[in-house]
Parts: sequence; C-alpha cells; structure tokens
Amino acid sequence: MARFKITIAYDGTDFVGWQRQATGRSVQGLIEGALRVLDGRDVAVTGAGRTDAGVHALGQVAACSLAREIDPATLARALNAQLPPDVRVLAAVEVGSAFHPRFSARSKTYRYRIWNGDVVSPFERRYAWHLVGALDLEAMARAARLLEGAHDFAAFQAAGSETRKTERRIFSLRIEDCGLRIGANQTIGASQLIVLEVEGEGFLRHMVRVMVGSLVEVGRGRRAPEWIDDVIGSRDRAKAGPTAPPHGLFLASVDYAGVLADES
Amino acid sequence: MARFKITIAYDGTDFVGWQRQATGRSVQGLIEGALRVLDGRDVAVTGAGRTDAGVHALGQVAACSLAREIDPATLARALNAQLPPDVRVLAAVEVGSAFHPRFSARSKTYRYRIWNGDVVSPFERRYAWHLVGALDLEAMARAARLLEGAHDFAAFQAAGSETRKTERRIFSLRIEDCGLRIGANQTIGASQLIVLEVEGEGFLRHMVRVMVGSLVEVGRGRRAPEWIDDVIGSRDRAKAGPTAPPHGLFLASVDYAGVLADES
Repeated sequence: MARFKITIAYDGTDFVGWQRQATGRSVQGLIEGALRVLDGRDVAVTGAGRTDAGVHALGQVAACSLAREIDPATLARALNAQLPPDVRVLAAVEVGSAFHPRFSARSKTYRYRIWNGDVVSPFERRYAWHLVGALDLEAMARAARLLEGAHDFAAFQAAGSETRKTERRIFSLRIEDCGLRIGANQTIGASQLIVLEVEGEGFLRHMVRVMVGSLVEVGRGRRAPEWIDDVIGSRDRAKAGPTAPPHGLFLASVDYAGVLADES
Repeated sequence: MARFKITIAYDGTDFVGWQRQATGRSVQGLIEGALRVLDGRDVAVTGAGRTDAGVHALGQVAACSLAREIDPATLARALNAQLPPDVRVLAAVEVGSAFHPRFSARSKTYRYRIWNGDVVSPFERRYAWHLVGALDLEAMARAARLLEGAHDFAAFQAAGSETRKTERRIFSLRIEDCGLRIGANQTIGASQLIVLEVEGEGFLRHMVRVMVGSLVEVGRGRRAPEWIDDVIGSRDRAKAGPTAPPHGLFLASVDYAGVLADES
C-alpha cells in the first residue's frame, strides 16, 4: 500500500461541504468515488480541514492509501478526469505511511474575503461577504492582534460544539485592503475587497467565521477593539459577534514544514 | 425626457449575450424590463458593445431616456433592486440628449484571460480560456504589435459578417503575464494567468476573439509573429487563427474622454 498526499481546490458553492454525508454532494464523497473506480475497492480519504457547506478551498490537503501501483502525476490526472470542474486535484505526492493530513500539519491558513461597497461585483457574489458601509480597518487590525497567540477560543466555536479542548494557537491574523474597484467610472461609492488571512495550529468549528464576524463588529464601530479580550475571557459563544457567511471563506493552504521530508 | 448613461457589469455565463433576442436571457432584455417597470412605458436601451453569449462585462455602457424624473443614484439603486445578481449597475449619470454609447465613445477596452497550466482552477473555469502547454509570450507580444494601428481587419471578423467598412484602429494590444498560482504546493506544472488587453476605436464582430486565437497560434509556435501581417493582408477569415472561446472575454471599459462633459 502506497500513501499519497493530494492537494485539492474546490468551489464550495454547490457542495454540502468537505465531509461525506447521508445525502448531498460532498468533496470527500466525490474523491472517494473516483478512487473506488481507480483502485477497484473502497478507499478512505481524510482531509486536513472539514470545510462547511459553501466554504471554498485553494489548497485543501487529503491523504489516501492505494493498493494499486500508480505514480503520483498519473493519480492526479486520473482523478481530474473523473471529477467535475468545480473540484480539481492540483498536486499529488507519495508520502510515508504515518502521514495524516490533519495531525501531521504544522499550520493551516484560511482567507476570508469581504466585498465592502454599495454594489457587489457579479464576479464576487459567490466568493465574498458583501458589506455595505465603511469599515474601520485600523480598529479591526488592533482587534485582530488580540486574537493572535495561544488562547481558549471557546467563545468562537459553533454553538452546541462538544469539543472539550478549546485552546488553539493563532500564529497571525492579517487584514489586507486590496482596494480593487469594480469596473470603470465607479461613482456609486468606493468598492473594495478586504482580505483577512489567518494562520493557526488548528481551528474549532466555525472559528474563523466567528472571528471574522466579531472583527466586523469592531470595524463597524459597534465594539471597541479591546472588546475582543472580553469575548475571549467569557468563553461564551453568545458574547462573540455573528458567524460570517460561508461563501467568503477559503481554506488557502496547509503547511507541513519538514514533516513530509521526514516521513516519505 | 432626461438621458442617462449607465455602467454595467455582468457575468455572461448564463446569458445569450447583451442583445435582446427572440428567446433566451439577454442583459439588454433584463434592463429594458426593469426600466419598463420604473418608467411605466417601453424604454429602449442601447449598449456600447454587443457582447456575444458567454462574454462578460466589467464596464459595459448603455444609455436610455426616461419620462419620469429621477436622480441617477436612485435610478441605479432601483435597477439593481430588480436585476438578478449576475447583472449589476455600477454607476448612472445624466448626460446630454445627443449621447450615444457607441457613437460617442472614443475607445473600448477588452480583456481576454487565458489560464495557461495543466489544471484549471475551479475559480477560473468560467472566466478564462484553458490552454495546456507553454506559450511563447515574447513571440505573441511581437505579433500583437503588428495588430496595433489602423488596418483592414476583414480577416478577423466572424465568417459571414456583412459589415462593409472593415478598417479599424487599435490603440494598443498588451499581453501581461499575471503569473498567479493555483493554491499552494503546486507541482503539476506551473499554472498561470495571461491577460491580453486591447484598446481600440471600434471592433468587428468576433474581432478580439479571432485576434486572440491568432496570437495563440503564434504563442504555440505554429506560426511566426510576421504571419499576422500576411493574415491582415489577406482580408480572408480563413487565413486567421480560430475564434477563442467567449468565456475568456471581458468588455472592460468604454472611454468617452471629454465627450460627456461637452454634452451634458
């Protein structure tokens, strides 16, 4: 049995999420279906992050073990030949048998895109949260710094989650004003793209989206940046901001720094 | 009757094109439908460019005359309230009664996007022509310079067109290597975005797409850059390259330099 690490991009619009479910179109389900055809048997695929319905991926990482001998480039091509165009295998490499996409990861990076303007570009409607009204990006950046580091993020996980260990380490949370304009002769307000990029050791369910929803409360001036400290301290989901919608979120990359070299 | 210039973006994927047709969903038809509700009468809308089925717009310009008094910002908002999310009015301004989106224009700018890599990003599948195999961008740039200036572009218009005056002036045709990568850990070839931007006084039907299809013949090494001169000289559509697919094409902007100020 050879083990493979595959890097996958998908447009989450028409998926129930990464994870296979009783009904609905899942990314994991499609890849497992393609591997079943390829390997002539049921193949389990594990992903680095269980992205929710509507969440996109630029570089999700998954692993599988195959009975059949196949070189990684052929595996990638064979998968793409079977998968629909909204899921693409970007890369495949052989890894050691101990490789696990989630447990072997050093960090994951998510990107959240906000379209901040009166009119949302038709090309961004599926890939950004549309927010009308100016956001105070400096206040948001100050608040973001309070989320960096090791904290108990219980207040930032989906209501009803049963995860007991809620400490996580955030390496960085940056806010970039991309300042793009939609088309020429723009006169209905200034429209622009704001991208939040967060790298962390691991994330609780909905954690990035609740962090974004909370930072937007600060950006809108409803809360002071220091309020974030109170939210962290409360360990209470009800104290944080709303959950930002899924379609602005992208799993950008998973970093295995050195782990792969050790194992393969 | 007040006359308005409106700037429009649309995702051409689900349209039969700009122009109203006997059947199918057209951008012009949707805007005329929304204006009919607003003005209580049939309103004709003229566009600067008749984009074909599947072609997108970042800054299409159209004009209409309304009986009802309305300020331009309200007009834009009222239209957006009625239009589906794949068409957005970006701006509206009042103009003089002589303003015509096509005849008053000094130039139009089109952008053509090529995804040059083994695997096409799920986020680019509707917005770029996917070409596998390296393109010689320097040769394409040399060929592009031969298309600049005033020429008879009869060889570059859709077969069967009946336009008699086929001279047009191209102000510039630039090729930009945007070098974007799809996701992290890319190992299946280097993938990148190439954008061709062409500004001209006017364009024949399919002219940008036949120019792009011809430049790609040069980029693939099937033709030398100087071949473009032979194609122009031939005035024969059969001598040019294939018509590039519509989904890579964007009407980027229409320039009225000073005309608007004179007329309004």
